[in-house]
Amino acid sequence: MSIDDARDMLRKRITHRIMEVEEVELTAAAGRVCGEDITSPMDSPPHDRSAVDGYAVVAEDTFGASPTNPVELKLVGRIELGADPSFLPEIRRGEAVEVPTGGPIPPGANAVVPLEHARRAGDRVEVYEHVRPLQNISGRGEDYRRGDVVLRRGLLIKPWHIAALASLGFRSLRVLRRPRVAILSTGSELIEPGEEPAPGKVYNCTKPMLKVMLTSHGAEPIDLGAVPDDVKLISERISDGLRRADSVIVTGGTSVGERDLVPEVISKVGEIVAHGLAIRPGKPTGFAISSGKPIFMLSGFPVAALIGFQELVIPALELMLGCRFDPPPRIRGRLTRRIASPPGIRTYARVRVFKSGDGEISIEPLRVTGSGILSTLTRGNGLLVIPEELEGFDEGSEVEVILLSPILEGDEM
Amino acid sequence: MSIDDARDMLRKRITHRIMEVEEVELTAAAGRVCGEDITSPMDSPPHDRSAVDGYAVVAEDTFGASPTNPVELKLVGRIELGADPSFLPEIRRGEAVEVPTGGPIPPGANAVVPLEHARRAGDRVEVYEHVRPLQNISGRGEDYRRGDVVLRRGLLIKPWHIAALASLGFRSLRVLRRPRVAILSTGSELIEPGEEPAPGKVYNCTKPMLKVMLTSHGAEPIDLGAVPDDVKLISERISDGLRRADSVIVTGGTSVGERDLVPEVISKVGEIVAHGLAIRPGKPTGFAISSGKPIFMLSGFPVAALIGFQELVIPALELMLGCRFDPPPRIRGRLTRRIASPPGIRTYARVRVFKSGDGEISIEPLRVTGSGILSTLTRGNGLLVIPEELEGFDEGSEVEVILLSPILEGDEM
Repeated sequence: MSIDDARDMLRKRITHRIMEVEEVELTAAAGRVCGEDITSPMDSPPHDRSAVDGYAVVAEDTFGASPTNPVELKLVGRIELGADPSFLPEIRRGEAVEVPTGGPIPPGANAVVPLEHARRAGDRVEVYEHVRPLQNISGRGEDYRRGDVVLRRGLLIKPWHIAALASLGFRSLRVLRRPRVAILSTGSELIEPGEEPAPGKVYNCTKPMLKVMLTSHGAEPIDLGAVPDDVKLISERISDGLRRADSVIVTGGTSVGERDLVPEVISKVGEIVAHGLAIRPGKPTGFAISSGKPIFMLSGFPVAALIGFQELVIPALELMLGCRFDPPPRIRGRLTRRIASPPGIRTYARVRVFKSGDGEISIEPLRVTGSGILSTLTRGNGLLVIPEELEGFDEGSEVEVILLSPILEGDEM
Repeated sequence: MSIDDARDMLRKRITHRIMEVEEVELTAAAGRVCGEDITSPMDSPPHDRSAVDGYAVVAEDTFGASPTNPVELKLVGRIELGADPSFLPEIRRGEAVEVPTGGPIPPGANAVVPLEHARRAGDRVEVYEHVRPLQNISGRGEDYRRGDVVLRRGLLIKPWHIAALASLGFRSLRVLRRPRVAILSTGSELIEPGEEPAPGKVYNCTKPMLKVMLTSHGAEPIDLGAVPDDVKLISERISDGLRRADSVIVTGGTSVGERDLVPEVISKVGEIVAHGLAIRPGKPTGFAISSGKPIFMLSGFPVAALIGFQELVIPALELMLGCRFDPPPRIRGRLTRRIASPPGIRTYARVRVFKSGDGEISIEPLRVTGSGILSTLTRGNGLLVIPEELEGFDEGSEVEVILLSPILEGDEM
């Protein structure tokens, strides 16, 4: 099954949704998902205000003004930021009032001449360029009118969204609760970091990576521990995970080989929808559905697990939250050598993206044997996706890659 | 002064560096900056292992194998993941042992035939394609040799870096301490969210945005409060900030106009290097240096402050930490209408990036009056940078924009 078909099936089959909201202090809302449509409680700005530092005037007075034929106005005062708009001096024809950016527009004025288009001489102002009525004025409610929708439910909250809410007086925001994702590691070969190394055993490195990726997508990882290749233990832990979490990720034991313990167990608690994908690395990747919740089978090998997470788990989180996460940064560059991919398979090749002496972006495919090789993600800093219909790219081709870490300089590692 | 020149000056003049390291648990290291070169304490993998599910063989036995002329080998066993490599059966010519991905290679074998290139029939294995010596084997130390540098000081830690460290048995990492950045809001017009609205007053919305942007770049914001336009108060708070933090941001009061309180005060505690930049919005943006630490003057208006943060504060953090942050995601699309920019000014236009019915990416410039208009960052989702040497872009031009939030669909808001 292609990864695109698998993702389509995933989107169709997940019916579980995160509905509960919780109220958090405004600055804690960044990276969370907006839990309801937020409407403005007020007009913003609450009064007409200046969009520039300048002179509030009657626009008609400035018509015909030019550097060679300036219009002279009488400066009758200055408005301070924060001044009460109810107590401003009224402006008459032939008069001007100095006003800072954001300052209220006094009654009678209908435009603001920017400082750089005027010159002050004592209590007179020479205007060198005309302004149209309403020019350089942010009208009351121009930003938001009372009742306007400011943020939609499902929006991933960014710093500037927090600024918008703060500008309207909000101190907190109702956000969707974090999705809970339980992670179970399987494999008799696993030991935990900190344990003594033992012959044949390998450190469980995929789980800490997945935990961090979940956290950085606003989810709460639940650690179901690590179990050996034992049907009963795996089964109990998965059931426990389904009770406590919105989704379960099982790593390891998913080879499309002889001892497919994990798929065997999962098929008893849910329906396996995809297992064995036309991707490299990550062929044993798959998922099942249980009561509308997804159970992911990811490789125990970190590079393959990373691909499975990006291609399946992130879309599942988006669906359950009704949100969209940011796409990863991408960059175009030129391949330093040919790279091959089997036809019909989508290959995620690890590459090194660097700037050559001439400033050109070069993309160097890294040689690997297997998805257990992590150094391709520490020496390398990008992923080149080779689509199913291509058998690779030639040396010198211009390709676009997903940038995992910033571009390197020359021979920097 | 152009923003590029200002940034160059900033890089030259900041001499303050964050040197202190602190040890954090591995999963807490994501988003932090690696505090020292990390070398591998072991060979990884610690023994030769299989890169595929398949059969460990003597490569020479498979020479000449083809689908029509398979080579038949005797299956003499199966190796489990986690098996002790010191107690494996030795393989002789004509024999094969089943081995899972990651499993140790038994003595005598020098290659692995993938499952899909072989067929098992009882205790015999038919091999349909030859393998070269060492093919599908990850040799001992292929990922990391003992003593290899795994991560460099200054690297921004990503989830896969954590996987690499975990695979080598690390449980913690020494990271640079978070940079401390003090923020002072100035302006007699400011009230804090939660306070009663009052005529002429505006909610301080720039500070919570800056706090969140600092946090998301691994920095620790220190809130110096908000002060009215008062020389003594501003001066005291900035000096306090310089004592407690690696950098100070002052917002508001920076207009290149009559009452330049903030630059006046800052010029007494440091040297103003740039003030008044050829950018829009954000002209009053600038910075000073005090004992090698940067003091930023940012607009009190959130959109202009956002630009100043991205263009100056982020590079300063990178310099003090010796790291590089990820570039923001960018996307190309077609302008729905002409957009103008004054010559010699770099304009950061707020745009709406959306997918039209035909799947094309469209970029719609949003009409604005002034940098106080926040709805351009809630209705819009992108920034189009118009360089100094252009006077704008024509309708239909293909342009690249910085994506602030994911692409919208059609008329979605």
